[in-house]
Amino acid sequence: MRPAAAPPSVVIVGAGFGGLWAARALSRLPVRVLLIDRRNYHTFLPLLYQVAAAEIEPEEIVCPVRSILRRSPRAEFLLAEVGHVDLGLRTVNAAGREIAYDYLVLSCGSITEYFGVPGAAEHAFPLKTLEDGITLRNHILHCFERAAREADSERRKALMTFVVIGGGATGVEFAGALAELVRRPLREDYRALDFREVRVLLLEAADSLLRGMPERLSAYARARLVSMGVDVRCSSPVHKVDRCSVHFGDGSSIATETTVWTAGVRGDASSVSSALRTSSGGRVQVLPTLQLEQHPEVYVIGDLAVPAKEGRPLPMVAPVAIQQGEAAGRNIARQISGAPVVPFKFRDHGMMVTLGRNAAVFSAGGVELRGFIAWVGWLAVHIVKLIGFRNRLFVMVNWAWDYLFFERTVRLILPGPVTPAHPEGEERARRQ
Amino acid sequence: MRPAAAPPSVVIVGAGFGGLWAARALSRLPVRVLLIDRRNYHTFLPLLYQVAAAEIEPEEIVCPVRSILRRSPRAEFLLAEVGHVDLGLRTVNAAGREIAYDYLVLSCGSITEYFGVPGAAEHAFPLKTLEDGITLRNHILHCFERAAREADSERRKALMTFVVIGGGATGVEFAGALAELVRRPLREDYRALDFREVRVLLLEAADSLLRGMPERLSAYARARLVSMGVDVRCSSPVHKVDRCSVHFGDGSSIATETTVWTAGVRGDASSVSSALRTSSGGRVQVLPTLQLEQHPEVYVIGDLAVPAKEGRPLPMVAPVAIQQGEAAGRNIARQISGAPVVPFKFRDHGMMVTLGRNAAVFSAGGVELRGFIAWVGWLAVHIVKLIGFRNRLFVMVNWAWDYLFFERTVRLILPGPVTPAHPEGEERARRQ
Repeated sequence: MRPAAAPPSVVIVGAGFGGLWAARALSRLPVRVLLIDRRNYHTFLPLLYQVAAAEIEPEEIVCPVRSILRRSPRAEFLLAEVGHVDLGLRTVNAAGREIAYDYLVLSCGSITEYFGVPGAAEHAFPLKTLEDGITLRNHILHCFERAAREADSERRKALMTFVVIGGGATGVEFAGALAELVRRPLREDYRALDFREVRVLLLEAADSLLRGMPERLSAYARARLVSMGVDVRCSSPVHKVDRCSVHFGDGSSIATETTVWTAGVRGDASSVSSALRTSSGGRVQVLPTLQLEQHPEVYVIGDLAVPAKEGRPLPMVAPVAIQQGEAAGRNIARQISGAPVVPFKFRDHGMMVTLGRNAAVFSAGGVELRGFIAWVGWLAVHIVKLIGFRNRLFVMVNWAWDYLFFERTVRLILPGPVTPAHPEGEERARRQ
Repeated sequence: MRPAAAPPSVVIVGAGFGGLWAARALSRLPVRVLLIDRRNYHTFLPLLYQVAAAEIEPEEIVCPVRSILRRSPRAEFLLAEVGHVDLGLRTVNAAGREIAYDYLVLSCGSITEYFGVPGAAEHAFPLKTLEDGITLRNHILHCFERAAREADSERRKALMTFVVIGGGATGVEFAGALAELVRRPLREDYRALDFREVRVLLLEAADSLLRGMPERLSAYARARLVSMGVDVRCSSPVHKVDRCSVHFGDGSSIATETTVWTAGVRGDASSVSSALRTSSGGRVQVLPTLQLEQHPEVYVIGDLAVPAKEGRPLPMVAPVAIQQGEAAGRNIARQISGAPVVPFKFRDHGMMVTLGRNAAVFSAGGVELRGFIAWVGWLAVHIVKLIGFRNRLFVMVNWAWDYLFFERTVRLILPGPVTPAHPEGEERARRQ
């Protein structure tokens, strides 16, 4: 036991929305906060699809964690992969040593869930990390470069066919952005290509897009995507993915060099501790206060947390993580001061999904907006929420440019996570 | 032979300064131009050192080749590695096929030259490509992250020791930028580190920095770097580089995790054709008209070219490549119209080297400038020359921000060419 005089130490695993907001909530308290992440930057994941669609640059959606923590003088940052959490000893293994904690916040987020679809993990592009976004962008641009010199018409068509699996917010937003990338900026770059051969497909297993949205908005989103040239297919579960095609249950298939998987995410607690009780989606079961039942000093928040008893799981989105991070921080403050902890209650400010350059759907407690007015709202909310003023400035300049000139200059095949040695070799650039 | 009616075809290998300006010079002529590069973007190499010093973002110094070529409707772009040039058959092997040419412009640039110093190629970081810049930036930031958790004081000092080998323009500019990165933005990020342990060394084998510059400016540059905290050592040839130190002839050494090699570049013609006659620096010998002696239809320009007979080699810098690109384009036009080709003559507009945030040295035909006024000139020239208006805008915003707030927000360890799976593993991120 540490001497009573030492301030309690709080270890936060993960610098996503949940972890950062927990650190902020603790920043004025007499506690030592250690925030651990395997990356030195926070990623604003709601805009990741725009990186993949060559709409904004990767740097515009990230911010160094140390910059964010400057306002919190008692908070420290450790760049490390967290190996194992020992709930009994109250230690976290990271950077080759055991780090003791008095309070622990687990906010490790989620990973892509392939639901066991054969070939999906090997051949589909995920869209969950900054690396994923850069890899996918590089691949899409490479496809057009290869198509430009491909004489065989079948192979050229497969290179220009893009299949997005999953009709949730990410799939809808990415399909819209990709359709717009293709419709104008790429058309000017590749004047020799016949763009009538380009296809963007959005496949959804359920019978409508954007589950959770009111039916009218879901139908509007679908009509809007179709008008942008996206081939939207609901009730189309994918049975198999291989290197150059997507297969359906009726034996039919689509030849494509690019399958993007946005159909699901799951919690990822196993790497941290096998002692955590998880639900089917890999999410850790927590009390309404966000604590572990056997360990009131451990909080689990964001995509990783799910209510242990009654109450349905909250969506795995940024607003939930942010509010849970704040709630966990406040409950830790209450524990330290001897006050009783309180249950978490989510305040739903609505869901917004953008559809291409200047339309969106927005739904919150009976309010429904769609079209341009919803898009303006979406833009304002996302730009305000982007951490870091300079990022906001750059994103605004980029957006204004895009809007005024309908030109994307971000079409760079940059050194990605793995740079193919040769243009033909970009298969190797795929993760896994 | 092609029918006389078909327009002549010009193949340009390399989309650096030389290749691009050659393509531009040919854009209004009735010729088909094919520009081949292994990357889909042009890199503004004079600012690469700022990427490595986390001063600007990689995207700010690059521009898609297809964007640049939009104004030249007869020019096409091919993203491919050029395998072999057959001067007899007049074909270029690229993307798996033989491409015939009537005129060829070779502008493949240069690669890092290690002069046979043992270990340099394996253990020193080069600074020659965008990948090099990103890799080096990620490594430097990782060094501070590792130092922040390193208990052993010797290892911590080695992590915070940065050795730059080569006192030419790149070495001087990078050492200055690195000293400034360390002096203020990193100091605020790593408050627990003792920054008196940080060392930036600049090693030069000759007895002064910036050979080619007037002595007074060279001395000023040295004094300025010293005042910024750089340990400048002239007459210090390096005898060996290994994983964690730099060795001198007298048996002494410096423990460091970061050795940056900017001491030399060489032409790289061997990959393209073994039939080319090269000088000791790997540069191809050309006539005063920039043509090959035996092949008047082949032009070699930029870093790759060297005069075959009298006349001393021109410096391997952007202005030479730009002027030679234009000259080659004009000579090809003369050949097509039956006019005699003319020798190339370099118009020297001076040499400018920046020294940190707000000083520079500038020399041109007897004019010598130094300090802030030279820096303003440097800034104006480089921003105007950056291709693409949006790039200019971003660089200006970044610069203004930097200047007003002395803050660099670009301190992101981004997914690099090879992302280390674990922070400790960044050795693997080194190229080679």
